[in-house]
Amino acid sequence: MRTLNAEHSITLPVRFAETDAMGVVHHSNYLIWFEAARVAWMDAAGVPYTEVAGGGHHFAVTGAQVEYRRSAYFGDTVRVSAKLALLRSRKVEFVYEVLNALDGVLLARGRTEHVCVDLNGCMATLPGDVMERLQLAVAMGV
Amino acid sequence: MRTLNAEHSITLPVRFAETDAMGVVHHSNYLIWFEAARVAWMDAAGVPYTEVAGGGHHFAVTGAQVEYRRSAYFGDTVRVSAKLALLRSRKVEFVYEVLNALDGVLLARGRTEHVCVDLNGCMATLPGDVMERLQLAVAMGV
Amino acid sequence: MRTLNAEHSITLPVRFAETDAMGVVHHSNYLIWFEAARVAWMDAAGVPYTEVAGGGHHFAVTGAQVEYRRSAYFGDTVRVSAKLALLRSRKVEFVYEVLNALDGVLLARGRTEHVCVDLNGCMATLPGDVMERLQLAVAMGV
Amino acid sequence: MRTLNAEHSITLPVRFAETDAMGVVHHSNYLIWFEAARVAWMDAAGVPYTEVAGGGHHFAVTGAQVEYRRSAYFGDTVRVSAKLALLRSRKVEFVYEVLNALDGVLLARGRTEHVCVDLNGCMATLPGDVMERLQLAVAMGV
Repeated sequence: MRTLNAEHSITLPVRFAETDAMGVVHHSNYLIWFEAARVAWMDAAGVPYTEVAGGGHHFAVTGAQVEYRRSAYFGDTVRVSAKLALLRSRKVEFVYEVLNALDGVLLARGRTEHVCVDLNGCMATLPGDVMERLQLAVAMGV
Repeated sequence: MRTLNAEHSITLPVRFAETDAMGVVHHSNYLIWFEAARVAWMDAAGVPYTEVAGGGHHFAVTGAQVEYRRSAYFGDTVRVSAKLALLRSRKVEFVYEVLNALDGVLLARGRTEHVCVDLNGCMATLPGDVMERLQLAVAMGV
Repeated sequence: MRTLNAEHSITLPVRFAETDAMGVVHHSNYLIWFEAARVAWMDAAGVPYTEVAGGGHHFAVTGAQVEYRRSAYFGDTVRVSAKLALLRSRKVEFVYEVLNALDGVLLARGRTEHVCVDLNGCMATLPGDVMERLQLAVAMGV
Repeated sequence: MRTLNAEHSITLPVRFAETDAMGVVHHSNYLIWFEAARVAWMDAAGVPYTEVAGGGHHFAVTGAQVEYRRSAYFGDTVRVSAKLALLRSRKVEFVYEVLNALDGVLLARGRTEHVCVDLNGCMATLPGDVMERLQLAVAMGV
């Protein structure tokens, strides 16, 4: 595997329900946006997460980090990009950026770490066909 | 079955994450509070929801109504009461009130309707022992 | 004012975070989807909600009803339509439908009731220009 | 200022709405639990967050990290502890632990970083009386 530089992005209008009494998007929502971008990345990579889950595996989240740079507001549209940053037999990591979709200003950066688990929640090796397609997707630039 | 007048309440400090940019608790959270009160009611009634679910049944929500009277704010503690309002072989309904826990002012009222479903999501009869304990709980005043 | 039959819809991929341990979208999220569709309706009607809020008014939610017909699942895309159902000097109501975007199956229906409030949370008359544009939007079919 | 070792904890029953289709608590909720514990820490420290906010300041979140060790399930009660880990003129950091309240098993650890901002969202020095009470609280062991 080589580049890991393929990224995919989605745009999301900020939902009013995502704001808090400071008048900005509550910080917990960035993890939900990251997840939506990760799911879209996997769709674009030809490895829909529904298929992984349907095959009895999940990418359980074992770590998450977010660096918040500027606030997002109701009325904003954000662009959230995801990129596979690490691909191992039992582990994957993704990195993310959240930009204001209008002016491209960086709002946040983040990373999530995942282990592959089976239906019993036990750590498992990524299924062979999932691994192959993830590698191919990365090599091809998604 | 007679009275259906047994109620049970919980108190919840408002979470900052539950507020929105109007500075009040976002209206969607009341359904989550209702659910927490319903779960507590079932615990108090001796029919823990985990046991119902563990036995392969769920109370799927088929309807919900909320009447919002006054806002709840960060810093408030709310008291949420639940009461079984209807008990049929395949159907239950609960009613709720949300009060400011400090001064007792009514903030909201609501109702949820549920059908019993099995693991395939098909409508099912409430398991006999669940029904018996629900009837007993109601008769005893929870 | 005549028809009130102008509707506007948005499509939303179900977010994994919106699901619950029953494996379906948690029922509280439909209120959040309704709100997103309502906001999109107002944008389409030329009365962006950010402008209403910027002018010091809010459409406080005073009532909400949802009728859940079928579950939505992770992997689904839903279409959520909003339509203004009532327009008074101090009050508006919207109705909603949630469909599976792929096959058009109806998943849920709902209604929300709102009163216009000022920055102090006191009931207020809809600003004249907002009312005019809402009436025009409805007359024109959004 | 010396120890920073004073901690405060809250117990929370897992809400059904906090679970996801993997059958566990969705990872984004830990940030919400951290916040609830942070708010409770500040209450215990004699510096209620409502008072800080009422005085025109907010502790904007600039960073968050979570390490997830084991899953939390509906039916569990969790104990969430918060501790002030850094106190500077414009910056505070908190660390957290989430335990299963029944058996004390560690479920997650985390950290959040905050800067003090004023009503315009500009970085500001912590108000003197807030700083004094935070220092006192830490020295006294909350």
